[in-house]
This record gives sequence, C-alpha cells and structure tokens, in this order.
Amino acid sequence: MYKLLVFLICTLYIVPLSAQELKSPDGSFVLFFSLNEQKSPVYSMKYKGRQVIKPSRLGFEILSGTAQMKEFFELQGIERSSKDTTWQTVWGEQRLIRNHYNEMLVSLLQEGRVMKIRFRLFNDGLGFRYEFPEQDKLSAFIIREELTEFNLAGDHKVFWMPGDYDTNEYLYTTSKFSEIGALMKKATLRIKSQHPIANTAVQTPLMMKSDNGLYINIHEAALVDYPAMHLNADVKTFGLSAHLVPDAWGGKGDINAPANTPWRTVVVSSDARNILASKLILNLNDPCRYDDVSWIKPVKYIGVWWQMFVGKGTWNYTDHENVKLGVTDYSRLQPNGTHAANTQNVKKYIDFAAKHGFDQVLVEGWNVGWEDWGGKVRENLFDFVTPYPDFDVKELQRYAAGKGVKVMMHHETGASVSNYERRLDTAFRFMREYGYNAVKTGYVGWIRPKGEHHDGQFMNNHYLHVARTAAKYKMMVNSHEAVRPTGLHRTYPNWLAQESARGTEFEAMSGLPPEHTTILPFTRLMGGPMDYTPGILQTIFSYHNPAKTKQAGTTLVKQLAYYVTMYSPLQMAADLPETYDRFADAFQFIKDVAVDWDDSWILEAEPGDYITIARKARGRNEWFIGGVTDENRRTATIDLRFLPRGRQYTATIYEDSGTAHWKTNPMSYRIRKVKVSSKTVLKQALAPGGGVAVSIKETD
Amino acid sequence: MYKLLVFLICTLYIVPLSAQELKSPDGSFVLFFSLNEQKSPVYSMKYKGRQVIKPSRLGFEILSGTAQMKEFFELQGIERSSKDTTWQTVWGEQRLIRNHYNEMLVSLLQEGRVMKIRFRLFNDGLGFRYEFPEQDKLSAFIIREELTEFNLAGDHKVFWMPGDYDTNEYLYTTSKFSEIGALMKKATLRIKSQHPIANTAVQTPLMMKSDNGLYINIHEAALVDYPAMHLNADVKTFGLSAHLVPDAWGGKGDINAPANTPWRTVVVSSDARNILASKLILNLNDPCRYDDVSWIKPVKYIGVWWQMFVGKGTWNYTDHENVKLGVTDYSRLQPNGTHAANTQNVKKYIDFAAKHGFDQVLVEGWNVGWEDWGGKVRENLFDFVTPYPDFDVKELQRYAAGKGVKVMMHHETGASVSNYERRLDTAFRFMREYGYNAVKTGYVGWIRPKGEHHDGQFMNNHYLHVARTAAKYKMMVNSHEAVRPTGLHRTYPNWLAQESARGTEFEAMSGLPPEHTTILPFTRLMGGPMDYTPGILQTIFSYHNPAKTKQAGTTLVKQLAYYVTMYSPLQMAADLPETYDRFADAFQFIKDVAVDWDDSWILEAEPGDYITIARKARGRNEWFIGGVTDENRRTATIDLRFLPRGRQYTATIYEDSGTAHWKTNPMSYRIRKVKVSSKTVLKQALAPGGGVAVSIKETD
Repeated sequence: MYKLLVFLICTLYIVPLSAQELKSPDGSFVLFFSLNEQKSPVYSMKYKGRQVIKPSRLGFEILSGTAQMKEFFELQGIERSSKDTTWQTVWGEQRLIRNHYNEMLVSLLQEGRVMKIRFRLFNDGLGFRYEFPEQDKLSAFIIREELTEFNLAGDHKVFWMPGDYDTNEYLYTTSKFSEIGALMKKATLRIKSQHPIANTAVQTPLMMKSDNGLYINIHEAALVDYPAMHLNADVKTFGLSAHLVPDAWGGKGDINAPANTPWRTVVVSSDARNILASKLILNLNDPCRYDDVSWIKPVKYIGVWWQMFVGKGTWNYTDHENVKLGVTDYSRLQPNGTHAANTQNVKKYIDFAAKHGFDQVLVEGWNVGWEDWGGKVRENLFDFVTPYPDFDVKELQRYAAGKGVKVMMHHETGASVSNYERRLDTAFRFMREYGYNAVKTGYVGWIRPKGEHHDGQFMNNHYLHVARTAAKYKMMVNSHEAVRPTGLHRTYPNWLAQESARGTEFEAMSGLPPEHTTILPFTRLMGGPMDYTPGILQTIFSYHNPAKTKQAGTTLVKQLAYYVTMYSPLQMAADLPETYDRFADAFQFIKDVAVDWDDSWILEAEPGDYITIARKARGRNEWFIGGVTDENRRTATIDLRFLPRGRQYTATIYEDSGTAHWKTNPMSYRIRKVKVSSKTVLKQALAPGGGVAVSIKETD
Repeated sequence: MYKLLVFLICTLYIVPLSAQELKSPDGSFVLFFSLNEQKSPVYSMKYKGRQVIKPSRLGFEILSGTAQMKEFFELQGIERSSKDTTWQTVWGEQRLIRNHYNEMLVSLLQEGRVMKIRFRLFNDGLGFRYEFPEQDKLSAFIIREELTEFNLAGDHKVFWMPGDYDTNEYLYTTSKFSEIGALMKKATLRIKSQHPIANTAVQTPLMMKSDNGLYINIHEAALVDYPAMHLNADVKTFGLSAHLVPDAWGGKGDINAPANTPWRTVVVSSDARNILASKLILNLNDPCRYDDVSWIKPVKYIGVWWQMFVGKGTWNYTDHENVKLGVTDYSRLQPNGTHAANTQNVKKYIDFAAKHGFDQVLVEGWNVGWEDWGGKVRENLFDFVTPYPDFDVKELQRYAAGKGVKVMMHHETGASVSNYERRLDTAFRFMREYGYNAVKTGYVGWIRPKGEHHDGQFMNNHYLHVARTAAKYKMMVNSHEAVRPTGLHRTYPNWLAQESARGTEFEAMSGLPPEHTTILPFTRLMGGPMDYTPGILQTIFSYHNPAKTKQAGTTLVKQLAYYVTMYSPLQMAADLPETYDRFADAFQFIKDVAVDWDDSWILEAEPGDYITIARKARGRNEWFIGGVTDENRRTATIDLRFLPRGRQYTATIYEDSGTAHWKTNPMSYRIRKVKVSSKTVLKQALAPGGGVAVSIKETD
C-alpha cells in the first residue's frame, strides 16, 4: 500500500575529529558539534549566517544504573550520510512528503560505554537524538535529567504556556522571553488535575520569533518509551534546557539499551509559512507499522456532546452523587430526565448524520459511572461496556448501520489507566461486536497508577499501547487529555487525532481569545492533528443558566475556516443539529469540506495574527481555503496560483459581513460565488476575530 | 454444583445502648464493645474467662475525602444475628465446613456519616470488619492509617517475621513479645526487593502462645480492594496496631462506599490443634463466585525447576547479559548449552510424569527474557508468548497430550505488573491455544507501577484481576511472591495456591531450619494453601559449585510428610526424576498421596515443635498421615480412631531409621507395612529434623 519513491544517496565515512560541521542539503543551516574543556558534548546552529542556537550542552544526569553521562567523553568517530526520499501518507495534508536531510552520527565513548548523538539537518531545520546501542557495559539505567540545552541568540518573542506534567490545556501567553518568569503566575490558569513545574518552564511545541525576523519552533518527534520534554527557561541568558516529566520514583526515563531518545527538533525559517509547511517532525518518525491500512479512514462526525456544554443535557443518567461500578443498580434509581445519550436522542443525531453525509456520531455519557466522574478518586469508575438503561447499544447499532452511519465509541477513563488497561481488550471486543470502528478516549483527572503523570514515560507507553491494541481490532483512536503529539500518527495512523490543547469546549467555559487559533497551528499542531471540534455556528449561546449568555471568540465564518486551518483527519461538526438546520447555507461548507488532502499551500501566516491555507481534497478536484485572523480586522490575499492552469473554477466564498465582529456581531455572514482561475488573487476582508472559507470546484 | 446444607437460625433486634456484649455460640468467647470518653470505638475479648484482647481502639485516620474517623462517634444502633450453615468446598482439607457464629453489627454515626463494625464470634475466635454503607455524606475517601488495635494481655511467646511491604520470605523468629524490637535487625534477613517497615512491625498471620496456655492467631480474611495489614508492635505495652501498606501517594486504602474492609481475625484456643483446624478465615470469605467449577482440579506436578537450583541447568538460554524484548534475535546468539527448558529435556519430564501419574509438568525459563531477569529495572522484559528457540510449544503440546499430561505455564513478571496486565489477555489466549490449563505466576523485583508494593491495594487488586481473568479462560493460578493469602480461594477456587513465604527453594540457597515447617502451618498456611514444593529426597546436593554441598533442613521422610502437613491442592514433587528413580520405594508415597480431601484430623500440634495430621482422600477410602518435628527427636502418638470402625486396614509407614538425623544422616529411612484399625494407636519415632508418612488402605 505504500508507494515509496526513493531517491537515495548515501555517503558514509568516518572522521575522528573533535570539532565537526554539518550542513543542510541547501546549505542554509550549519550545525557545529564539539567536546568542550570538560569533554561535554556541545552543539550550536546557524541559519543563513544567523545564530539560532548558541553553544548548548548535551548529555544526561543519571539516577541509577550507570555513571553520569555529562562529561569525560571522548570522540570515537563520526559517520555522515545523506538521504532524499519521498514517501506517501496514509492520510494527511499532502499525499507525498519529501524526506531530505544530511546526517551526522557522533559516537562518544566514556569508559567503554558508547553514547551516540544523531543529527539530521533538513532544509527547514534540525532533528537530533541520543542513541544507546546494544553493548556490554550499558544496559538498563534511569535518567535523573536530560541536559539538552537550546541556548537562544536573543530575547525572542515567545508563544508559550506554563510547563506542566499533567495538562496542556493552558492558553498561550505572548511575551518577550525575558518576561516569561514575571508572567508565569498569571499564565498558570487553574485547570483540573494540573501539576505546574515549580521552576520557570514552558511547554513544547514552543514558537518564537527573533528580532531579526527568524521564526523558530522547538519540539520533539517520536516520543516513544520516554517522558515528554518540557523546557526550563532561563530568562536572563535566554537559555532553554530539557525538563523531563518524572515518574513515581522521581526518575525521568528508564532506558534499556538498545534504545533511542525521541528527536529534539528545531524548525527555523525567515518565513512563518515554512514553519507550518514543515514536515520535519513527520519525517523523523518511523514509517507506518501496519501492513493493512485499508480500514483507516478520515472521519467527519457529529456528536451528542455540545448539547451537554450548552446545558441542554447531561452526561449522567441520574443526579445520585455516589455510584459504584458493579454495585449501583441504575434501574432502581430515579433518572434525571436530562441524560443526553438516550436511544431516542441518538437516533435523531444518526438521522441528521445520514441526511448530511457524516460518517459517525460520537455519543458521550452512554455508559454507567458519569455521576461520579470528576473530582473523586475512583480506580474503577467506568467499565466501558455497561450502557445506561436508556441507551440501547444493539438497537442503535442496527439503526445506524441501516443508515450507513457509525456510532463513535467514547472511553472516558477518568485517568484511571490501570482500570482502563485491565478492561482494554474487553472494551475493544465490545466495540467490535457492536460495529464501532473508532473511539474517543479521555483522561480527565489524576493518573492511576498513582504518582504517574499524563506526560510521563508510563503514560506515553500507555497511549501507544492503546493505539496498537486498537489496531489489532481495526479501531481508530482520538485521544483527549493525552500528551501532545509528536508525529507518531505517521507510524500508527489509526491514532487519528488528539485533543492535547485548549479546544472548542472552552468556548463554553472560560472562553477562547480570537488569537488562540492563530497560535495553535504554530504550537500544538506542529506535532499532529487536533480534534479541535470546530463548527460552533450559534456563537452566542446560553450555558446552564439561560440568563448567563456565553459566546465563542470567533465569528461564524471563522468557525468554518477552522476546517481548513486546523488540520485534522478527524473533524467534528460540533454544534447542535438544529443550529445547522438554521444556518443551512453556511453549514454547506462543513458538509462539502474534505478531511483528507492531496496537497496543501500555506498562503499567509504570522503566529498570533493570521493564517490562510489552501488545500486540495484527496482524490478529487476540489479545493478548500480557510483564513483566520486574531482580534484585528484584516484583508487576506488569496493567490490561487496553486490551481491547475488554464481551467475555470467556481469559488463559493463564505465571508464575514462588513459589520461582522466576533464580539458584537459574530453571526453576520455572506456567501457568494465567483469564477476563478489559477491567475486569480482574491482580496478578502476578515472581520475582527473573523475568517473566510472558500470552496472551489471545477466549473461544469 | 454447591450442595449447601443450611441450618440457619437468624434472630435480629436493635438495642440502642453504648456498652455491648457478644458471646460465641458455645459461650467460650465474650466480646465487649463500647465508646470511650473520646467517643472512640473500643473492643475487648475474653476466652473462657481469660483476657485475650484488652480494650483496643478501632477507627481510621483519614488522608482525604472525609473527616477523621477516630472519635466523636455516637452509637446509632446494634443489630444482632446468628448463623449456622454448612457449605461444601470445591476442594480442600475437608468436604464440608460448618459456619457457625453469633454476630453483632454496630452502627456508628459521626455528623451524619455512618460507619459500621460487624463482629462475628465463632467457637474458635473472632472476625470483625468495618463497613461503609452507601450514603449521601460518605463517598470516596483515602485512609491515612487504620487504627485497629489488638492489645494483648501479656508478654506472649511470638512466632513472627519483620513487617515488610514487599516480601514475606523471611524466616520466623520465636521470642517473647517484649524481645521483638531487640531482635528485629537480626530477623530482617536480606531479601531481593524488600521494604521493611521502619518502626517495629510484624507480619500476619501472627502466631502467639500466652504464659497461661492460650494459642492466639491474628490475621485477616477476604483481603479485597484494600492494602494488606501488618502490625506495629509496642514491646512495652504488648500492643499491636494495624499498619497498612501504603501506595505511591502515601495513602493506605482508597475507599469507595459502599465498601467493607477485610475481616480482622483472632483465632484462639487452649489446644494448638484447634488453631490448625480452624476454618474461621474461610468462613469469613464469600462463597465461590463461579457457576461452573468443573474445570478446577487439584494438581500433582513435577517441574523443570529444581535442576536449575542444583546447578544442573539455567533459566536463561544464553549468557548474553543484555537482551531486549522484541529487539534481541535469539537465533543469532550463542546458546549457553545449559538451558533446561529445551524440548528434549521437557519430553523426559513428560515421560516421567506420565509413567508415575502426575498431572502436569511445570517448565520455567521457556520464554525469552531470562538473561536480564533479576536486579535490572525493565518494564518490558517478558511477553509470556515467545519461546526460546529450543522450546517447541506446539510439539510439546502434542507430545504431552498424547501422554495424558499437561505442561504447566510459567509467567514470571519480574514484578512488572503494568507489562503483565497489558499482555494478560494475550498470554491467556496463548495458553488456551496450546492446551495449558494452569499457570504459575511470579513477582520477583520492584513493583511496576513504580511506587506500589507487593502487599498494597493496587497489587491486591491485581492478583484478583489475574485470578478472575484466568477464570474466564478456565485457567488455574499458583502465584509466587504475591501477598499472603486470606482465604480468597473459597471465592476464587481457581486461585489454587500461593507461595508467599520462604519455601523449598531456600533449601538450595540459605537453607531452612528444621523448625520452619512446624511454624508455617500456624502462620502462613492459616490464610490458604502454599505451593511449598516439597519432595526433596536427595537432601544433600551440590549447588553451582560441586565442591560446595548444600543440604535440606530435613530428613528424607520429613519431605514425604509435608504432602500431608503442608496442605495444598497443588503439590509438587520437586526433586529430579533421577532422584525419584533412585528412591523408588519412598517415592511411592508421593505417587499415592492425595491432593484433595474429604476430611482432616489434626492429631498433634505445637507451634515450632511438631505437627501430626491425618487426612482422608476425597472420594476414596484412603488415608494419609504426616508427622514432622523440629530439630528434636520425638515420638508421635498417632491415634487412628478417625478410621471407620470394625474394618481392617493396611498402613504403609515411611519412617526415619533409628540413626537418621536431618544433619548427619538424613536419607536413612525404612518402609514397613502393618495391619491397623480404628483402635490402633501408633507410637512413631521421628528423628531430629525428621518425620513420618503413612498411607492407609483398606485391606483387600
């Protein structure tokens, strides 16, 4: 199923020198590696002559199992190689991805122990990782801290959120690097089961812009069997250093040689669009592990979900506050009358999905336990197989199948992972029996096993365990409250998407500022697709208390634009069916928009300000464009030169009206059709907090 | 499948008083309950007028989730009831067990929260537990410590081992209660992955003898979803108080009402034989949870096991010290030539088992990973399904099946429980596919998830999870290095046996003193059967270094006696097949002895000194007697009045020779046949460290 177009040039030679240079294929990046006077490994990097990373330490503090790995190294050898390959995605923003880099593998020796550092320099940045090959003198050991530094060249503008072992659902703060410390307390919003890092630390993907116009993004790729990396920030020296997430013993990574760390990535460009276009993180991940991927399909879905957020239903079936799995007899409890996941209601959603061409209907709150979800410590709250009395699994399977729709499974674990892992096979067998092929997982709460964190090695192994186990049952996974992604969807493409950031649900809670989605693609989305759950067309709504109105930080049109700017192979139309009936013309864009793409073009981009992206639907001649702006009005320049030349197209433009404004007049929009060609350049007005969405088809 | 002979008398009335008495059915025990001046619950107990438990506190320190539960209680009510039932065992020391007690359920109120204490007084002792019924004001909470006390009436002789969160493989120390503190350091032998309790604490089952001739045993029953209880020992006041095993957060039990603690048990008698005969702990466990138990069968087995201990083979297939699951290609490694679990060798064991009527052959070291077992921290060391290259699972299945024998599975987890749970279903499916029906599990090492302990709530839930999951696949379980048993084999009879104490393997390591097996039945075995793995007939053997000879702390005959004195439905003949060929006449006893019983008679018993037990084979007219002594020579008085009257029987007596001595002449034995009847009283000499074994059949 994989057509690999391989153009491989491989050169290999060994040079035993102590100061080394590596250049990117186009020569724009130069990496320097050396051992300093303490014989510690040090690297630095320039981009087009400009310093990006000043000399920065590499190595490890060791907790147990071997000697310290921070100094007294000798250079054993250097191996250089190059690669230029093109590979095909199972799904993605583009069908083909070029993997083009020069590599330098540094072998370091320390009293007979070998540690290697593999540097890969692409035309858009750097990836490097530590490797511990199989050897007699190094076997199992535990890291106290990874010493990797990223010493920056200046007081950059930074888009950051507080470092935290358990949540990535903070808002972004935009500030100078030097201001991070002073702003940390304010930035550390209160979030359920959070564990902020005591010292000044930030999360990756970390987006920065230097005074001399460089865009710099630091993250990691292929986070496997290792804790996630946060970054200590030294606001005086502009230094960043790895801060791994600890385990219940206080260790920061059990290593069993042969083993590699994840790749540390630095994507750099003088054009912000190249950051969004970068496929460096995907290229550093392993190819797909599955032979058969025919069962993996991008999904457009609706859900019994938003109605709970807007107060029109509840996850729980009763208002009884103390239930217990296997003990509580729900048939004897008084239903609260507001339980949303009831057979009749779900059938309405199935009808709607079938009518409008959606693949699936997510149903949250279908299974017993929700009365005690949140706050309370319960190892065995959910069993993932017992429906509430008013949710008829079998009947809904029959009903949905008859309409060509699937019900999407929901496994809220309450972060009781020990419980979930014990029940995982049973849960997937249940899904197979009832015709499910996708599951949304949730990890709200304090991790069980106790002492572990959402972003620690144990949990990172867990998420992959779920993805791999799901694959055995041919199930697709969409994980919420998990560690942020690092490109592993290349290797495990059934792990379709994740939440792992502040998503649309917050529009119904504390709200999201208009700039939020102009930052997310430069940060959270660098690692992989997000189940952002856009599509809130009724942007002003009442929540719980009808007298207390909430509203999204967007215009209606901006919500449409998200289907293009917030890339995901799993896209929800999150609003209520009745809302879509009311905005049927705008809803048409959501119905039309693709969820899988042959190619993508980043037309305009500035983190925190605006993004405009065009994409071609995979396998069909349709193009979709999304543009978003922050709180400022702007005019997008949409150059359609990506269209095939010499043909005529019809563009349907969904735009903010002239008086639209995210705060004061968000649901004012216009839809118009225009003839376009590859020579067209649209000048498109976006309201404050607004957007634009365009669908383009060949003119008949 | 259960024939319950129910003679149930139930009386129920409520008395709102603050000082309460409860008597055992025969009136020998009297329990007193009251609230003291701090309104803390207090109990005390007398046996035949003698104080056993002085006034002792009850209650809890709470870590979170609710208020403290140690004082300010008010007595809400008392419910009294009685029960007299007889139930049938699936397997056991006797076919029928009588459950006869008087009960007092004390309801305590504390600011609207209800805690109940249920006392059951049997004719052989006390059981009590805390109950948290379903209620609005009490839901999920975490215990800081259980405050239960057992304040003793004097400076008893105590058979104890150090309290430890992770191991119960200590030797027993016999001392006065007041000496425990001074002897603790010496008693705390070095054991792999131990975690001794910092203060002076001992393990249960705790056996004691008072100066006024009372035998007292303290333990617990039905340890479910709760940490194991060790006991702090106050050597000045002779006070014992609960010391629960903490979890990774430092909590000592997550409670989710409705919930009960395990039962705290105090078995008392002026005759030591009644301690061994007590079925109080089984009676306090729930009835069997399985509808179909036809697949659960007691097992007599041999194993590829002792040959590794005596240095005639290894678990590991290579001497490569650093292997990694899924990475190491064993077919490319040099075999060490000593790997015992190879197809050819296992076939020899299968032949031997078939020839001599054994049900199963345990094979340890069959699967990849053993090179790195022990010491190293590896989460994913074993996968439980990948054999070494020289172990042909399919061929051995075929070969064993053709001979009517089964291979017994071995799952050494290395205490990486997270790994084991992830692979559990796969491992059991593998077993089903290849015809296994029993597994020996092992937990050597530091528990994963990190921060948990062998005896903590997490692990106690794990062991039950394994037993229950095994039952789904109709598999029997024999767990090693798990928490000591608490009678749960009544409820889950496929959990046949456990190690959970210092067993025969130590004969090949630091040795076992002759008294060890005169203590174990009064301590470890009070909770349930032990896979002690007796049958070492070659009691002097070389181990690793042929020049360095080891020897068991027993005579040959004592090893035979163990099949009766060390009750288990799972009995191994642990020695090498060639040993049994050499001692074919003595081996006949092991071949003949039953592993399941209609009835048992404790003929003689004194903890630390001697035990003589007779049992009738289940479903057939054969009786077997075992007698053991400590390092002292003695004459056992074996009264055969348990035999049916008026018939003639032939007893085959396996006895130490006149010159036998465990240390100097252990393998000197005689076998003789005598005619006996119910009127016979045998006077049987036992050598120092010796024993006697008798099989009795009807004379044709």
